[in-house]
Amino acid sequence: MALREILSLDNPVFSCYLFYVSLLTVKLMVMTLLTGLQRFRKQVVSNQEDTVLGAEIIFNDPDVERVRRAHLNDLENIPPFMIIALAYLFTDPSYKVASNLFRIFTASRFLHTLIYAIYVLPQPTRAILFWIGFLVTWYMAIQGLLIFNY
Amino acid sequence: MALREILSLDNPVFSCYLFYVSLLTVKLMVMTLLTGLQRFRKQVVSNQEDTVLGAEIIFNDPDVERVRRAHLNDLENIPPFMIIALAYLFTDPSYKVASNLFRIFTASRFLHTLIYAIYVLPQPTRAILFWIGFLVTWYMAIQGLLIFNY
Amino acid sequence: MALREILSLDNPVFSCYLFYVSLLTVKLMVMTLLTGLQRFRKQVVSNQEDTVLGAEIIFNDPDVERVRRAHLNDLENIPPFMIIALAYLFTDPSYKVASNLFRIFTASRFLHTLIYAIYVLPQPTRAILFWIGFLVTWYMAIQGLLIFNY
Repeated sequence: MALREILSLDNPVFSCYLFYVSLLTVKLMVMTLLTGLQRFRKQVVSNQEDTVLGAEIIFNDPDVERVRRAHLNDLENIPPFMIIALAYLFTDPSYKVASNLFRIFTASRFLHTLIYAIYVLPQPTRAILFWIGFLVTWYMAIQGLLIFNY
Repeated sequence: MALREILSLDNPVFSCYLFYVSLLTVKLMVMTLLTGLQRFRKQVVSNQEDTVLGAEIIFNDPDVERVRRAHLNDLENIPPFMIIALAYLFTDPSYKVASNLFRIFTASRFLHTLIYAIYVLPQPTRAILFWIGFLVTWYMAIQGLLIFNY
Repeated sequence: MALREILSLDNPVFSCYLFYVSLLTVKLMVMTLLTGLQRFRKQVVSNQEDTVLGAEIIFNDPDVERVRRAHLNDLENIPPFMIIALAYLFTDPSYKVASNLFRIFTASRFLHTLIYAIYVLPQPTRAILFWIGFLVTWYMAIQGLLIFNY
């Protein structure tokens, strides 16, 4: 395939990339809903103007903070992945390798949140799930460093 | 229009996308300036080496923390929007729909910060402004899930 | 060069962009490792399930928090740069200008972390390093606002 056709829906790797970008966006947005849910359940807010319905200003509620840590971990990992995966498309990976890397990363992030903020499991479960996605990102970044001209 | 021409300045939807990406980048950078302004005004810093001019290390100044919360809310929403909007271009939206979604999202984020960190208004003003941009992002992500092949 | 060929490896500016995106992704991932290293060294964690190996739950360890502030500063600046730099490619910059802007931004972020979280130097060292990268981002965003049609 000519390189200029990488960013085309005729390229199954690119279409697959766009699908997982959409799914990971949904995942990030769900974190906001999850935080809101915990704030509502525990009646815990951060701003004076948010106390109208009876909630209190509390900054260290363990359940709210746990979701927020999971969300921050997503912010540290998902947007960089979305961008490096776009760059990775230009290393001309096979559909099989690329699509499975996208799937593995996405699955690891969904499971990471499940284990971190919804149904807490003992370590090293969360650490292993984190490292799976982390290594996918490293792999793509190193491929980029090897292939692109600085 | 052939799909391969989506990422071309001849495509008015793409040029419009690039404009709002530029404007949203300015918006994110302004948040940093706003935090700096509040830190200077209240003489509040986070690091020992930043106290040279007489500021104190304080981590819970309400005005500084308010701007930081608005900034974090931007970080949770704007970079994901920038990427999902790029994916959304490949769903081949009409110029009218796409450009207005970009405008609505951008306007909602500017007003969200105005109401959150500069001129505080009672709820549900901020909640409504948040949800406008949030729903635009959801819409684009769901379009992506429906159209792209995983 | 025809505009549709911007996102091609035949375009040296784009290849250079992809290289620095890869390098900046590595940089972001290193911040996570650096936080983990400080947590291990100080035996400081955030979650009950992370205390199995004897670490304590502490949220205000100065060394851990310093690395986390440097990481957050990266998150505020690097993903927006990655995206605005992609938009900036469509302003058709010369290779010389664009590649040097990518290099200056990347160098400023690496040095910023070095000075902030590893080998602390007195201000205004960190402020100057921050502003170098910050101004590169502003320059690209303003170019975008001037050139793209809203």
